Order: sequence, then structure tokens, then C-alpha cells
Amino acid sequence: MEPNNQQAYDRGSTIFSPDGRLYQVEYAREAVARGGPTVGITAAESVVFASYGSARSPLVVPESIEKLRDIDGQLGIATAGHVADGRRLVEQGRQFAHQERLRYDEQPGVEATAKALADFVQESTQVGGTRPFGAALLVGGVVDRPRLYDVDPSGTPTEWRATAIGHESDAIREALEAEYEQQLDEHTALRLALRALSGDERELSTESLDVAVAREDGLTTFDEGQRRDLLEETEL
Amino acid sequence: MEPNNQQAYDRGSTIFSPDGRLYQVEYAREAVARGGPTVGITAAESVVFASYGSARSPLVVPESIEKLRDIDGQLGIATAGHVADGRRLVEQGRQFAHQERLRYDEQPGVEATAKALADFVQESTQVGGTRPFGAALLVGGVVDRPRLYDVDPSGTPTEWRATAIGHESDAIREALEAEYEQQLDEHTALRLALRALSGDERELSTESLDVAVAREDGLTTFDEGQRRDLLEETEL
Amino acid sequence: MEPNNQQAYDRGSTIFSPDGRLYQVEYAREAVARGGPTVGITAAESVVFASYGSARSPLVVPESIEKLRDIDGQLGIATAGHVADGRRLVEQGRQFAHQERLRYDEQPGVEATAKALADFVQESTQVGGTRPFGAALLVGGVVDRPRLYDVDPSGTPTEWRATAIGHESDAIREALEAEYEQQLDEHTALRLALRALSGDERELSTESLDVAVAREDGLTTFDEGQRRDLLEETEL
Amino acid sequence: MEPNNQQAYDRGSTIFSPDGRLYQVEYAREAVARGGPTVGITAAESVVFASYGSARSPLVVPESIEKLRDIDGQLGIATAGHVADGRRLVEQGRQFAHQERLRYDEQPGVEATAKALADFVQESTQVGGTRPFGAALLVGGVVDRPRLYDVDPSGTPTEWRATAIGHESDAIREALEAEYEQQLDEHTALRLALRALSGDERELSTESLDVAVAREDGLTTFDEGQRRDLLEETEL
Amino acid sequence: MEPNNQQAYDRGSTIFSPDGRLYQVEYAREAVARGGPTVGITAAESVVFASYGSARSPLVVPESIEKLRDIDGQLGIATAGHVADGRRLVEQGRQFAHQERLRYDEQPGVEATAKALADFVQESTQVGGTRPFGAALLVGGVVDRPRLYDVDPSGTPTEWRATAIGHESDAIREALEAEYEQQLDEHTALRLALRALSGDERELSTESLDVAVAREDGLTTFDEGQRRDLLEETEL
Amino acid sequence: MEPNNQQAYDRGSTIFSPDGRLYQVEYAREAVARGGPTVGITAAESVVFASYGSARSPLVVPESIEKLRDIDGQLGIATAGHVADGRRLVEQGRQFAHQERLRYDEQPGVEATAKALADFVQESTQVGGTRPFGAALLVGGVVDRPRLYDVDPSGTPTEWRATAIGHESDAIREALEAEYEQQLDEHTALRLALRALSGDERELSTESLDVAVAREDGLTTFDEGQRRDLLEETEL
Amino acid sequence: MEPNNQQAYDRGSTIFSPDGRLYQVEYAREAVARGGPTVGITAAESVVFASYGSARSPLVVPESIEKLRDIDGQLGIATAGHVADGRRLVEQGRQFAHQERLRYDEQPGVEATAKALADFVQESTQVGGTRPFGAALLVGGVVDRPRLYDVDPSGTPTEWRATAIGHESDAIREALEAEYEQQLDEHTALRLALRALSGDERELSTESLDVAVAREDGLTTFDEGQRRDLLEETEL
Repeated sequence: MEPNNQQAYDRGSTIFSPDGRLYQVEYAREAVARGGPTVGITAAESVVFASYGSARSPLVVPESIEKLRDIDGQLGIATAGHVADGRRLVEQGRQFAHQERLRYDEQPGVEATAKALADFVQESTQVGGTRPFGAALLVGGVVDRPRLYDVDPSGTPTEWRATAIGHESDAIREALEAEYEQQLDEHTALRLALRALSGDERELSTESLDVAVAREDGLTTFDEGQRRDLLEETEL
Repeated sequence: MEPNNQQAYDRGSTIFSPDGRLYQVEYAREAVARGGPTVGITAAESVVFASYGSARSPLVVPESIEKLRDIDGQLGIATAGHVADGRRLVEQGRQFAHQERLRYDEQPGVEATAKALADFVQESTQVGGTRPFGAALLVGGVVDRPRLYDVDPSGTPTEWRATAIGHESDAIREALEAEYEQQLDEHTALRLALRALSGDERELSTESLDVAVAREDGLTTFDEGQRRDLLEETEL
Repeated sequence: MEPNNQQAYDRGSTIFSPDGRLYQVEYAREAVARGGPTVGITAAESVVFASYGSARSPLVVPESIEKLRDIDGQLGIATAGHVADGRRLVEQGRQFAHQERLRYDEQPGVEATAKALADFVQESTQVGGTRPFGAALLVGGVVDRPRLYDVDPSGTPTEWRATAIGHESDAIREALEAEYEQQLDEHTALRLALRALSGDERELSTESLDVAVAREDGLTTFDEGQRRDLLEETEL
Repeated sequence: MEPNNQQAYDRGSTIFSPDGRLYQVEYAREAVARGGPTVGITAAESVVFASYGSARSPLVVPESIEKLRDIDGQLGIATAGHVADGRRLVEQGRQFAHQERLRYDEQPGVEATAKALADFVQESTQVGGTRPFGAALLVGGVVDRPRLYDVDPSGTPTEWRATAIGHESDAIREALEAEYEQQLDEHTALRLALRALSGDERELSTESLDVAVAREDGLTTFDEGQRRDLLEETEL
Repeated sequence: MEPNNQQAYDRGSTIFSPDGRLYQVEYAREAVARGGPTVGITAAESVVFASYGSARSPLVVPESIEKLRDIDGQLGIATAGHVADGRRLVEQGRQFAHQERLRYDEQPGVEATAKALADFVQESTQVGGTRPFGAALLVGGVVDRPRLYDVDPSGTPTEWRATAIGHESDAIREALEAEYEQQLDEHTALRLALRALSGDERELSTESLDVAVAREDGLTTFDEGQRRDLLEETEL
Repeated sequence: MEPNNQQAYDRGSTIFSPDGRLYQVEYAREAVARGGPTVGITAAESVVFASYGSARSPLVVPESIEKLRDIDGQLGIATAGHVADGRRLVEQGRQFAHQERLRYDEQPGVEATAKALADFVQESTQVGGTRPFGAALLVGGVVDRPRLYDVDPSGTPTEWRATAIGHESDAIREALEAEYEQQLDEHTALRLALRALSGDERELSTESLDVAVAREDGLTTFDEGQRRDLLEETEL
Repeated sequence: MEPNNQQAYDRGSTIFSPDGRLYQVEYAREAVARGGPTVGITAAESVVFASYGSARSPLVVPESIEKLRDIDGQLGIATAGHVADGRRLVEQGRQFAHQERLRYDEQPGVEATAKALADFVQESTQVGGTRPFGAALLVGGVVDRPRLYDVDPSGTPTEWRATAIGHESDAIREALEAEYEQQLDEHTALRLALRALSGDERELSTESLDVAVAREDGLTTFDEGQRRDLLEETEL
């Protein structure tokens, strides 16, 4: 198909191109690919997350732009892509957890939360009056056992032992595939996350790195000192 | 009709072309044709399913992307095409079953479930404000007797003794027509499913294959060992 | 009017062309003309139906694609054209009958059912947000006396002594006009239906033929043996 | 204004052209002009109607396509143009009469019915989301005294002593103007109606003609014998 | 601005052109200018109206197309332009009067009625989903004292001592300006109305003329004899 | 940006151009610039208004087209631009005042009224389904102390000691800036208003001029005699 | 991407371009960049704000156009960009604070207010029927401790120690980065704000400058004398 034809099918999210593609969803994936990458790895008793962001102004309060946030204190959630869309989805996840707890007096697990977010995202790709979300999600935590999902802009949830979203996530995932083993201890998982995240080009520093670990007792975010120690141990 | 004319009629799902065609529905069928194939066969006392998917990352948790899922524990349902749309339809089927059980205190059968899903899909092709679903379905199971339906993107349900959806489903169905007999025992049906699914080109392996059997007591999914045994017996 | 002008008026169902035509409705008629034909004939004490469908896969369960269905057990209804639209209209007819029975404790007759369906179809041609239905209907049965209606994609109901819908229905109707007499006995009517349906080109077989008869005590569909006997008697 | 400019203003019913015209309404009038004509004449104590329709298949049940119908048993109503739209308007008239009778325990008169229908039609020409009706109406009857209205696709009701709608209605009306007198006896009015309807070209026959008379005691439709007698007396 | 640019701004009522104009409203004014003119004049104790319409068929019942109608028996209302739109506005005025009387047990005055109609018209020029009304109004009567308003398609109400709407209303108004005096007796006002209405070209006759007078005791419409007398006295 | 590009962004009120402008709002400002100017000046104990309108027909009842109106008897409000839109906004202001008084048993002040109108106007520039208002407002009066606001088509309210809206308002405002002093006595303020309004070109006369003064006890409009006296004193 | 392609994706806020961008949001940022800049700095016990606006007419009442406003008396809020949109957001913030206080009997903090406003803004970029807001916000105050957020047109909230919005905000922020220290005393923070705001080009004066300080006991706006003193001390 030549450029002119493609253009005819990509101006609305609600129509298929003659070859069965949804261009608006594919363009939303481009928005994701423009966002800083996040790695998530399930370890023996936790899920570890590491995010890379471009150098930020020293005037920003880092907490306000951290990519690793929590849902209900328990689950970790990371976003890549259009920042405001990501925030909207995190909030949607928090509302879901809040309502589930009210309704069933119980915290929703990783799978239920990821699938509820995926439903919400899929609807934005089919129904008129809204564009798709330009953000992908990683949702992980330990409810019974460590689990990790990603949700892409089409609204597909996939469970992973380890994966990445955002810029060059394919290359990062290849690095994970080469080194990942099941039942890693948390510390080994963290170092693997940093090696995969840095890849060939990204220079990790305490300023450009966010780290968090979801354990049975909730999500813990690393402070600057913890991040520096981790970077030194990982020899990056 | 030359390209320029076609383009005039395929930008919305709600209009006919001069020759009475609905292009958006036809393009949604292209989305189905891009998806990995699934075979379904009714045997004497069960319905067997076999799905082929391209090699997956070793880091994916296979259960999260399996194509063969259950409705209410009882029926098997498979999707081909745009993955997020397929998930949405599976969920719609689950909701239907849930509501039927609440209302009539009884599990809905294969026919009722397939037709309810077909109604839902047809509406998406006629009413404005939504695109068609880019996914086809196979729904099968044993409620009284083994039955199998497919539902295509136009919203047409068809009952089959054996059929396939997804990539090259026509060729797979031809293979089934040549070999299918009624009242097959389950094991013979499974081997037929694998032979038809592999065809001339697809190399089946425990990684690329999903297998499930719906019996009177519900849907059973094959684990890796069962899949390996089956592949060896089928000599593929 | 040259092609370019026509195109300007046929992209929405809700506008007239300068010569007072509704192109979307005419295109929906093309969808009907692409569907296998069905003949309906009122006999002395029954209405007979015969449908021709292209050879089907031996794996299809014939009942699931039969063109001759019932409303409320009493009336026969046949569709031609876009299959999923036809199903939607059959269901609409069933709902109408169900509600009428709840409301008046009485089965609706042929005329009331056909007109309710016609209203539903007409609305789809005038109101925005939906396309016309790409299907025509035959509705017949014996409530008091044998009656037969067709409903076309514009939403016009017409009562007939005998008629046809679908591919080459004009030629089939001409054949009926030449031979039809009132108060035919049922058997003669069935043979006339088959002769008209086969015409010059269609080769009728037990596989490509559906036959049903609506009598005062409800709709009866012919099984394979009955169809074979009928074909032999008709000498086709 | 050259063709290209006109085209710019005739694609929606809701906008005026620079010279203050509503093209969609004018095109709906074209749909009316394509329909078979009906003549209505007020006589001393009745309103007579005569409709011409092209030769119909001998298989059609004539009642189902008759152009002269009743509202509430009392008023006569005829339509010309897009058949399904005409039916919709007849039904709207019947609903109006039904509601009026429920509300006021009294049958609505000719004027009230015609004006209610005109309101309904006007709205379809101004509000978005619907096209105009491609049908004109004649409404006549005797409530107190004989009265006759037409309603055109713009939604304008006009009272007439005698008039016509549909194909070549202008020519038919000229014929009526030449011969009409007030307080005609019914029989004379019927013969005038047939002469005007046949004009120079239309060959009236019992098959192509519908005749009805609205008197104080309701609408009476002529059967084939009555139509034949009338044709003979009129010497057409 | 050249033609091509204008076209870009006149296809919807809801947008301004770069020079701050609303083309759809201006085109609706063209629809008014195509309608037969009506003159209204406030006299000492009454408001007089005279309308010119093109020669009508002798078969039309004149009352049904008269341009001078009443609201609530008390006020006179005339329309010029698209006839069906004018009727809709007259009805809107009648509903307003009816509701006011129910609510306040009092007949609404000329000003209140004209302003309520103006609000209704303005909304049609700003909100989407409807086109402007292609009709202007004259509303006049004696509640306390003789008053006369016009309402144009933009929804602006203006009070006049004497004015005209419809075809060549500017020329007619100039004629009125030259001759009008306050506290005219009714008969002088009527003759002035006829002279202004006939202008240089329009030949007034009892067939082409409507005349009405709104006095404190309500609206009186002139019959044919009264119109003939008036024409003779006016020496037209 | 060249013309062709501009055109792409000015057809709907709800989108920004690449340089961050809202063209529909800017075009609505053009509609304001086409309207007769009004000057407002806060004096020591009052707010004075003077409006210029083109010569009107002697047949118009001047009150019906006066530009200086009251809200609740207390505040003065003037509009410039598309007349029907201005009326709609005046009415909106009156409704606001009416509701406030019902709710709080207190008359709303100048600021509250101007801001409520500004909210109403801003919404028309952001939400779909309506165009912006083509009118600007001056709202002034004495509740506690003399205050004066304008509201422009973007929905921005600004408080002024003295300002103008409508045709050549910038030049008029410059004249005010040169001469305005705080705590002017009312008479001096009125003469300043007239001098600024007349500028270099506008010839003020009792026919083309409206004058009103809002004092603590409400709005007073000048009659013809008062206007003549004022014009003479101002030596225009 | 060449100009023509870009144009295809920037006419609606709800679609992505092929490279994953939302042009309408980027254009709204251009509207922000056209607005006068505001600086916000968190000091040891307060948050200081300084705004630059182009020279205003001496007739404007400065309070009515001040850029530094309060929410609930407690928080400071500044806007840059399309003025009417900024006002709308300030009002939204006030409503939020009002509702929170009613619901929880407690004043909402800086973070809660900024995030509520961000949600409101994000929705305007995704859902149909509205354009994005052409305004950015600074929200700051002391609830527990001094905090400062900005909200951009995409709906992203970011917490800062010090930042700027509006014209040349990047350059202003660089100046802040060079000089900012934590726990500045308020006076030092104010002088830093003025130096950063003036930059190389902007000439600050009491007329073009707004200054405000949010302390634990609420927002205080500087009067002209205070601004003059501050300017002198800062030696600008």
C-alpha cells in the first residue's frame, strides 16, 4: 500500500485498513516507543522494577515524576509513553483497586488489576469519541506469588517472568531472555534489571534511574543512596 | 471497481458499496486471517481444540497468552485475529454465561453462547460509533452432546463438525474434510487436529502449540508433557 | 448522472440523490441479490418454502445454516442477502412474537409480524447512526388462512400468493406467475416451488436445497430423505 | 449556479443554499414525482380517491399494496413516492388518531390529522440525524363536512377541493381545475377522478386502479367489480 | 473574499467566516426574500396586515394557505419564506401563548410573544443539529395598545410602527416611511398597506390578497367581499 | 502561514492552529468589530453608557433596538456585534440575576454577573455542538460602588474604569485614556463619553445615540430631550 | 514528515500522528508560549510568585486581570496562555477546593488540587467534543510545607522547587537552576524570582509585574508600593 492509501485509514481509531490493521493503535505504540524504558523482573519472592528517564532538571521534585508508582500500597505500576495518559491509567488502576476492596473487602491481585486496565484500554480503541491511550503499563506485585503483566495500547494483557516497555524495549527484552532464570534472588534480579536497562547506550545514574521492589508486604521505592549502592554493585 | 472507488466505501462500517458489500467487515476478516489458526473437532464424547501460535518469548508466562480459554469452566473458546478484540469477546461470553446462570440457575449451552456472541458482533457492524471486531471465535463443548460453532466478524454463527479459524483456515478445513468422520474417539480427533493444523508449512512444537479438550465435565488444557506426547504420537 | 456525481449521494443512508433515490437502500438490495434464492408459495391449507444454497462443506451442521427458520413455532421465515443481518431480523421477529404473546396472550399473525419487521427495517433507512439491513425476508404461515409476505431493504411489506427473494428472484417469480394457481394442494405447490427455484441453471440436490411447510399446526422442515423423495418426484 | 456549486449544498437536509433553497427537500419531491398518482376530490357528501399503479404481478395480494388506506376507519389516506416512507407516515397518522381518541374520547378530524402529519414531516427537514420523507400524502374524509388535505415533503399542509399527488400531478390538477364544481354528487366526482387520472397516457384497468370513497360512516374501498363498472361508465 | 473561500464557511450554521459573518443565516434570509410580502401597520386602535400571494389554484381552499393567522384569537401573525418553517413558528407561538395562559392565567402580549419566538429562532442559528428557520415573522396586536414586531432568521426581534417582510420588503418599507403617520385611523392604514404592498409591479386582486385587522377584541380576517371593497376604495 | 493553511484550522471552534490560535474566536471578534460602538465610564457615583447606532428607519420603535438595557433594573448592559447573539447574552444575564435573587434573596453585583456571563461564553468556545457568540458585552452598575466590566467572545471578563466595545473600540479607548480621570462627576463623564464616541468620523445625533446612567438606585435611560441637551452641551 | 502530512493529523485532538504525537496538545502548548511568563519558587516557609504582563491600559482595573489568584484563600494559582481557558481552570480549582471542604471539612493540599486539575485537563485531550485547554498552571502554597506544581496542556502535573510557565519559560527555568537553593528565605526567593523573570529582555515595572506570596496563613498579593520596593531592592 502506498502512502496515500495508508493515510486514508489512519485518521480514526475505529476503522480497519484493507489489510486488517488499526493504524491509530499502531501510532499509539509509537508514543510508547518514545517513552523512557522500564524493566520488570519476577524474582523468587518479589517483583523488581527499574526505570530509565532522561536527565531531569535539578529543580523538579523527583517523586512527582517517578515512573514507578504503587496501586493500593501493594502493587507496582510503571508507564511508558504519553505521560498524561499514563497517569490516567494509573489512576484508573487505583480506582479499580479501591472499588474491589470496598466490594469484596479484599485487595485485587496482579492479574485482576492488569485485566481490568486492559479492558479499559481496549474500549478506547473500538468505541468512537475517544482516541487510544498512548501509554503502555507494567503491573507487578506479590499477592500469593510474584506476578508481572504488561498492557499495550491495543488493550492486550500479557504475563511475563521478565519484560520491558518503552524505548527499545525489544532490545532490552532480548538481554533479559539471555540472562533470566526463575527463582532469582531479589538482589540478582535487581542487577540483571540494571544491566538490561543500560544496554549499549543508556548511561544509568542516580538521577536517571528509578528502582522499586514489590514484596508481599508492599512496594518499596529505592532512595538515592540505595540507587547509588545498587549502581556500584552492578558496576555500571 | 477500481481502487479509487473502493476507497470511497470502506471508511465506515455502516455503509454498503454499490455492489452490496460491507468493506469494514471484509477488512476485519483480514485481521482474522493474520492471526494464528485454531482447529476445532467434535469427537464422539468431546470437542478437541488445537491452536498454533508463532514462537513466543521464553519469558512470557504461557498461560497468559494461550488461545484456548474456557467459559464457565465448561465450554472452550478460541479466538483468531486482533488479540485485544478476541479477549473482549471471550469476556463478553463469560458475562453472558454468568448472567444466564444467575437468571436461570443453569449453564448456557454451546448454541446459546455462540448466538449471543454473534448478536453482539453483528451490532458492531451496523450501528455507528464503533468498528467491527477484528476477531473470529470458535466455541465448543459438551452440554448434552458435543457441539462446535464459529462466529465470524460479520456476526454469523455456524455450527460445524470440525473447522478452523485464522491464518489459512480454508486450507486447514479442506484437510479436515478429507479425513473427518463422525463419532471419532477423542485421541484420533486430536491427531487429526494436529495434522490439519500443521499442514505443509507450520512446524508444530510444544512451544507453538496449544491443545485443549472440552468434555462433559469441563475444559482440560494440555500441559507441556501432554503436548509432547501428542506430537510424538502424531509423528509431526 | 455520471459516476462521480452518484458517488456524492451514496455514502450515507439518510440523503436523497437529486433524482429522488436512496442509494444506500439500492446497494442493500444488491446485497440481497447476492444471496441464495428462496421461493414461497401459498397453497390451499399451507405455505411452502424452498431455498437454494451453494454447496456447503460436509463439515457444516446443516441445521445451523438453514435458511428456513420458524417464528414462535408457527410462522416460517426466510432471509436472503447479508447472512448476519438476516439473522438479526429473524431474531427481531421472534422478539416481536414473544412480546405480543406476553401482551395479548395470543400469537401474532403473518401480517402483524411482517409489518413490525418492515417498520424496523424502514427506520434503519431514515435515521442516522445505522446502515440499512442488507437482507430481504419472506414471512409466511397459517393463522386463520395461509398468507405470505416479503419485506425488502427499504422496509416495504408486500403480500404475495407466491414469490421469491434473493439471487435472480425476478426470473423465479416469472416462472411462478406462469404456473401458479390458487388453492393448490400442498404437494403440487412443493413441486412448483422446486421447478421455479431450479430455473435454467441451479442444480438442486439434497445438499443445496432446504424445504419447509407452514401449516395450521406449525412449521415442518423436511429432512434429507423427504427432500430426496421430493426431488425425485419433481424429476429434477 | 453551476453544478459543482449546487452539489456543495445538497448533501444534508439541514443547510440552506446561498439562494435560500433546501435541496434535500427538493430531491424528496423528486421521489414523490416518481410515484404513481392519486386523485382526491371532495364531493357533496363524500371525498373520493382514485389511484393509478403500474401493472402488478398477478401473484401480489392486491390489498397489501393498495395505495388507499384508512385512518381509524374514518379517514382516507393516500401516499405517493418512496413506498416505505409512505407506510411510515400512514402509521404515524394512525398512532395520532389512536392517541387523540384515548385522550379526548373523540376521533380527530381531517385538519388535525393532516397538520399533525405535517409537523412530523417538517421536523424531518430541519433537525439533524434524519433525512426528509420521500413521500407526499392525501388525507380526506367527512367529519362534519367533506375535507381534503395534501402534505408535501417540506411538511406543508394545504386544503383542496380537489387535487392530485405523485407522477404528473400538475397536469392532473389542471384537468381537475377545468372540470371541478362544488357539491358534485359522488358518482360524478368518481368519473371526474378517473378522467383526470387517466390523462393522455395512463391506461386505467381494474388491475392498475384503486378507488375509495370516504363518507360520514367511514372509508369504503371498491372491489374489482365496482372498479370495472366504474371504468365502463366512465368510458375509459 | 473569492467564491471558493466563501464556500468554505457556509456549510454549517455554527461557524463564523473570517469577516465575522454567519452565512447560513444570510442564506435563510434569501429564503425569506423568496416569499410573498406582508405589510403590517399600527393604527390608532388596531394593527392592520396585508399579504400578497401569487395566484393560487381555484381548487385550493383559501383558508388553508392564508398568510395571516392568529395566536390565541388575539394576535395576528404573518410569515414569509419557507412555508413549512413559517407554520412551525406559528405553532411555536401558539404553544407559547397556551403555556403562558396556563401558567399566569393571562394572555401574553405582543412583545413577550415576539421575544419568545426570537429566542427560539436564535437558538437554531447557534446550536448544532439543526438549520436556521428559513422564515421571518410579523407579530402584531392590541394588548393595552397596538404593537407590531418582526423577527428575522437571525432571531432578532424589532418593534415597528409599520414594516414589511418577504419579497422586496425594503422597497415596501420605503413606501411606508414616506406616507406613514402615527394614530392613523384603521381605514387609512389599510389603504396605505395596500398601496405599499402593490408597489410598482404587484397587481393586487381579491385572489392574491389577504387582509386582517387585529383589534382589542381579537383578529378579524377580511372575506372576499371586504377585500374587493377595499381594493376599489384604494383604487388599485 | 499562508492562506491555505489557515483555512484548515478555522472551520471549527474547538481546535487550535499550529501557532496556538483559535480562529473561530478571532472571527467572532470580527463580528463584534462590525457592530456599533458603546462607551462605558465609571464616574464618582455612577456608571455612564453611550452607544452609537447607524441611522434607523423612522418607523422603528426605538426602544426595541436600544443597545443599552438593564439587568434586574439595577445594572446596565450593552452589546456589540451579532445582534441576536447579544440579545441571547442579555437574557442569560437576566436569568442569572433572577436565579441569584431567588437563591440568596439578593441582587448579584457587577462582578458576579460579568463573570457568570464570561463562563457561559467561554464554554461556547471549547465544547462542541455550538459556535462562539459573535457579541461582546459591557456590564456596569453601582452595587456598593461603581464598577464596569467587558466580556469578549473568548469569555474573558476585564474590569475597566472606562472602555469601549464594537467598531473602532481601540481608537475610542485611546481617546478615553487621554482624558479619563477618577471620581469624575457624572455630567463630565457623560460629555467625555460622547466626545470619545464621536471620534473623528461618527456624527452623533439624537437618532444615532443612546445614553444611560446606572446609579445606586438603578439604570436610567435618557429620552430624546435629554440626549439633545447633552449633545448641545458637549458641542458636538 | 512534510507539511502536508502533518496537516492530516492535527485537526482533531483525539488522534495520534504516525510518529505517536498529539498535535492539538502541542498547539495548545504554543498558546501557552504566547502568554506572559510567571515564576514560582518554594522558599523555606512560603511559595513566591512573580508574573510579567505586557503594559496594560491605565484604564484597566488591575485586580481584574491579575495573573496571580488564590484558591480558597490558601493556595496561589497562576495561568499562562489563552486567558479565558486559564480563568476556567482557576474556577475549576476553586470548585474542587469548595467540594473537598464540604466533603471532608478540610482544605485540599497543593498536590491534591494540582492533580485534580491535571485529570480535568487530560480528559480534554482524549475525549471527543472538546478541544484541549490552551493554558498552563502553576499551583503553590503551604499546607504542612511549601509545595509548587505545574500542570501543562497535556494534563501532566509536575512538582518543582522552582519553575516558570509561559513565554520563554525554558530560559527562565535555566536561570532558576543556576541560582536556586533550598530553604531560601522569602525575600531572597522574591529577588531571585524577579531576576529570572526579567531575563535579558523583559523590563519589569510596577505596571508589568504581579507578585504574590503563599504562606501558611494564606496568599498575599503585593500592592504597587510593595512591588516598587521589591524592584528597587532587586536593582532591576
